Amino acid sequence: MPNLQEEMQRVKSKVDSLILEELLPASSPIPEIDLLYRMMRDYPARPAKGLRPFLCVATCRAMGGSEDDALLTASCIEMFQHWILIHDDIEDGSDLRRGQPTLHRMYGDPLALNAGDALHARMWGALVSNARRLGEARALGIMTEFSTMVDETTEGQHMELSWVREGRWDLSEHDYYEMCARKTSWYTAAGPCRLGAIVAGAGEAELARLLEFGTKMGVGFQIQDDALNLTGDPRKYGKASTDDILEGKRTLILLRLLGLVTRDEKDRLVSVMAKSRDDKTPADVEYVLSLVKKYDTIGYAQKRAKELIDEALVALRAVDWKGDRDSFSLLEAAARFAVERNW
Amino acid sequence: MPNLQEEMQRVKSKVDSLILEELLPASSPIPEIDLLYRMMRDYPARPAKGLRPFLCVATCRAMGGSEDDALLTASCIEMFQHWILIHDDIEDGSDLRRGQPTLHRMYGDPLALNAGDALHARMWGALVSNARRLGEARALGIMTEFSTMVDETTEGQHMELSWVREGRWDLSEHDYYEMCARKTSWYTAAGPCRLGAIVAGAGEAELARLLEFGTKMGVGFQIQDDALNLTGDPRKYGKASTDDILEGKRTLILLRLLGLVTRDEKDRLVSVMAKSRDDKTPADVEYVLSLVKKYDTIGYAQKRAKELIDEALVALRAVDWKGDRDSFSLLEAAARFAVERNW
Repeated sequence: MPNLQEEMQRVKSKVDSLILEELLPASSPIPEIDLLYRMMRDYPARPAKGLRPFLCVATCRAMGGSEDDALLTASCIEMFQHWILIHDDIEDGSDLRRGQPTLHRMYGDPLALNAGDALHARMWGALVSNARRLGEARALGIMTEFSTMVDETTEGQHMELSWVREGRWDLSEHDYYEMCARKTSWYTAAGPCRLGAIVAGAGEAELARLLEFGTKMGVGFQIQDDALNLTGDPRKYGKASTDDILEGKRTLILLRLLGLVTRDEKDRLVSVMAKSRDDKTPADVEYVLSLVKKYDTIGYAQKRAKELIDEALVALRAVDWKGDRDSFSLLEAAARFAVERNW
Repeated sequence: MPNLQEEMQRVKSKVDSLILEELLPASSPIPEIDLLYRMMRDYPARPAKGLRPFLCVATCRAMGGSEDDALLTASCIEMFQHWILIHDDIEDGSDLRRGQPTLHRMYGDPLALNAGDALHARMWGALVSNARRLGEARALGIMTEFSTMVDETTEGQHMELSWVREGRWDLSEHDYYEMCARKTSWYTAAGPCRLGAIVAGAGEAELARLLEFGTKMGVGFQIQDDALNLTGDPRKYGKASTDDILEGKRTLILLRLLGLVTRDEKDRLVSVMAKSRDDKTPADVEYVLSLVKKYDTIGYAQKRAKELIDEALVALRAVDWKGDRDSFSLLEAAARFAVERNW
């Protein structure tokens, strides 16, 4: 079996070429518009794992479809991630993305917001051209899936942002799963796998199994992301460490913690988390981290993530795979990678 | 011939029903998501002229197509305006839209930005369903035109925002036309007319004439919009009066003014316009208005707008119209309305 990380990089490099050489405009004689194009090409040119386009291509192959048929769709999945990250970084007020300043820190919120919209529209323009290779009906089917994927992602994003805005801490683990299933799972795993399957011609029954697989894998991926935000090496991880604390994110790690701490600890924890990003001191962040360590809620969350991946793998194995065996094995490896990675 | 304003309202009421009753979700059992849906339905429920969907439907009918075939596309044009105005209001820091507080003033930037994205995606989802009535090939052709329309609009928006950000005043009238042709003309006139023509089955030659018509009409529309911003009745106009001065917009009225004022006036004018929105005093705004009045650059700009509409009408009349004569006459009336309206 090929190595997972090599395979992710191989697919990513094909997808990046397609995005940067064919799907996005290279330059404009009008200097202002040339700057817009450079902004649109900024996130796509930064290093990334390439998990999502890989999942699309591998699912297509494992279903008996051809890699070449899936590459344009996989590229659009990657373009989706680029524009939504530009907007996500504005919404969260984040400083770093993939080890470099976020786009809105470089050019200000208005230009960055607009560049995200421009990239969003280019994604749909590229999806139209799927008709040439896959035919009109399948191209439209892929767009319907994209439409669902963006709907779900924006709904999950709204849930998380509204919790922060309204100062909500009366949230259960179930609420967290509902939010992640939308915010993360659809565009990280469920959408990419289902899109690869649609390219290969899969039916509703297989798509339903892939939805279960992708939803559980995506939540596991998000839990590990939350853990890395608190413990990871920022050079590998690419985002500012402890950003989630500064942004007041409702992670499983924090929700679990709120159920375990003493009354005094809870009062202080909630008052620290309620502060605005700029008002939070290094001592505030240290206090949150000390409680996380004391009650080992990272350990708890990672255990839940591993359980989710075990359930995801059961759903994955129930799919009627008719294609490349290696690609199926790589999908299994990718599910484990989602919760075992340190970057 | 039917009355233009009645006709715009008639089409708008059909389009609004389609948007609010069929294309947008009504409610969700999850309270957070229910709020997102209410945010997405906010701008669509506010009163508006309905010029854009009218242009789409009237062009389709004047070309010999059926109104019912054009209504979904016209609704998507209106949805486009809704999501881009949500984002535009964030980018400009505007307080009022259609006489009420802007969405980001009501819910904060992060939730409003995300709601705009959600509406953007719903627009594309709705466009996919055009295939049921118009067939797959035409549905895809309409999407290609939408993709161009969003590309052009974001490029024009970028030009304007980057001039403000970089403090640029070394701009010519030509620069202003280039910006408006992208920022305003495509989604106000060129796109809606061409989309109506595509629904009716028009060929490339007719689409090229409609591009010329729509580009010139759109620039005329924007010039009148700039004039109304300085002189209009805010109750009719719906936006805060003199917002363009506060936002530092490079309008034809101001660019012309810069070429006419004395050196001392120019120094003070540029230093006033360079201030941030919050730093501009009522006396600053009054000073700009006094110069505009002294040199009558509103008169100059409106004269240019009328010339553009005359040229636009020549292009409109060169189209090979084969359908409803009244609809053609209404298109002529709409072009004049663009520069003669006081709302």
